[in-house]
Amino acid sequence: MPLWNIYHPVGAYTAEDKQEIATRIKDAHSAIPKFYVGVIFQEVPKDSFYMGAEQRDNFVRLRVDIFARHISKDKAWTESFLRKMNEAIEPFVQRRGYNYELHVGETPRELWLIDGIHPPKPDTVAENRWRIENRASPFDAEEG
Amino acid sequence: MPLWNIYHPVGAYTAEDKQEIATRIKDAHSAIPKFYVGVIFQEVPKDSFYMGAEQRDNFVRLRVDIFARHISKDKAWTESFLRKMNEAIEPFVQRRGYNYELHVGETPRELWLIDGIHPPKPDTVAENRWRIENRASPFDAEEG
Amino acid sequence: MPLWNIYHPVGAYTAEDKQEIATRIKDAHSAIPKFYVGVIFQEVPKDSFYMGAEQRDNFVRLRVDIFARHISKDKAWTESFLRKMNEAIEPFVQRRGYNYELHVGETPRELWLIDGIHPPKPDTVAENRWRIENRASPFDAEEG
Repeated sequence: MPLWNIYHPVGAYTAEDKQEIATRIKDAHSAIPKFYVGVIFQEVPKDSFYMGAEQRDNFVRLRVDIFARHISKDKAWTESFLRKMNEAIEPFVQRRGYNYELHVGETPRELWLIDGIHPPKPDTVAENRWRIENRASPFDAEEG
Repeated sequence: MPLWNIYHPVGAYTAEDKQEIATRIKDAHSAIPKFYVGVIFQEVPKDSFYMGAEQRDNFVRLRVDIFARHISKDKAWTESFLRKMNEAIEPFVQRRGYNYELHVGETPRELWLIDGIHPPKPDTVAENRWRIENRASPFDAEEG
Repeated sequence: MPLWNIYHPVGAYTAEDKQEIATRIKDAHSAIPKFYVGVIFQEVPKDSFYMGAEQRDNFVRLRVDIFARHISKDKAWTESFLRKMNEAIEPFVQRRGYNYELHVGETPRELWLIDGIHPPKPDTVAENRWRIENRASPFDAEEG
């Protein structure tokens, strides 16, 4: 987590584009271990992609899952979050001539596993080790 | 938003079918600007599509994201909403001999962007302009 | 519901593997009618699959939707749930050499249809019939 599902037109992005988009999204989520940030690209043919019942081959639809933090009503946080996410993707949507829409779902941090381990709480010894090593590893209750 | 992910058997729908399904879904969401309504069709091969651990090539699975409005426990609203959505899709599922299942997730309106703009509140001057023009455009705080 | 979206590398699983994974997941959800449990496998090419902005062809990303039960903060329940889900998938991820991540979203039971019917409440006469017959069928208000 977060997980980004990016639905885009067939052929919209090269492998290099996708690598750069994923890097920009990873960098935008600056507060968490890098390996938490998942981005999955899915091509959608024009006859399977409808916005307002119009077939689109110039639209990018993004769905993002983040942790519920009961912050979605914190206006300063949401504005900052949306601005950062928009800056991350903007060169590959607006500047490429694509319309786009992004929405964010909130899911409980409690129901989450990486490599079979429930990840450590934020700002703990264990999370810091995960951040530095950029991978999951066992930890004991005192660390995480 | 809303966003519909429709997982269906390979070859279940022609382009004309998909256009009509998207149109019916758009019409069922009558209270919002039309271009808000996203529908993405995804074919799932039989050996990748399991319900109750049985491979299915005659099942349609629909996931819909709508805005959280703390209304999911309002019985009159939910019954009306589900009936409308069911009427929209029914000719392409039940009447085609497909079993189907639909569930709805609620996500926060606060975490939402179209073309980089956080959309206006419902029933505002700006939303009305978006509805009439059927596209996103900048607005100032008084309008939206 | 539940619905499992399993994003996996191209060619990671045979049809037999997928059948066994779906069976293990169905069995792990022991409290509900079997036909409720949906599993959809989606192959993601390496250049479309990023974790921490690294292309991965040895990672499995799982998203699960379950009913919101306001239990996600019940520690005993969440630990038991995650352990069961992990045991279900573990032979096909960790033991195959894949890293993996699973997260769970909670959606309202009120916004849910199977074959056009809003399913019965848990532990009712109607749910018991659905469980035994392993399919949806009409019921009246007293039964469900």
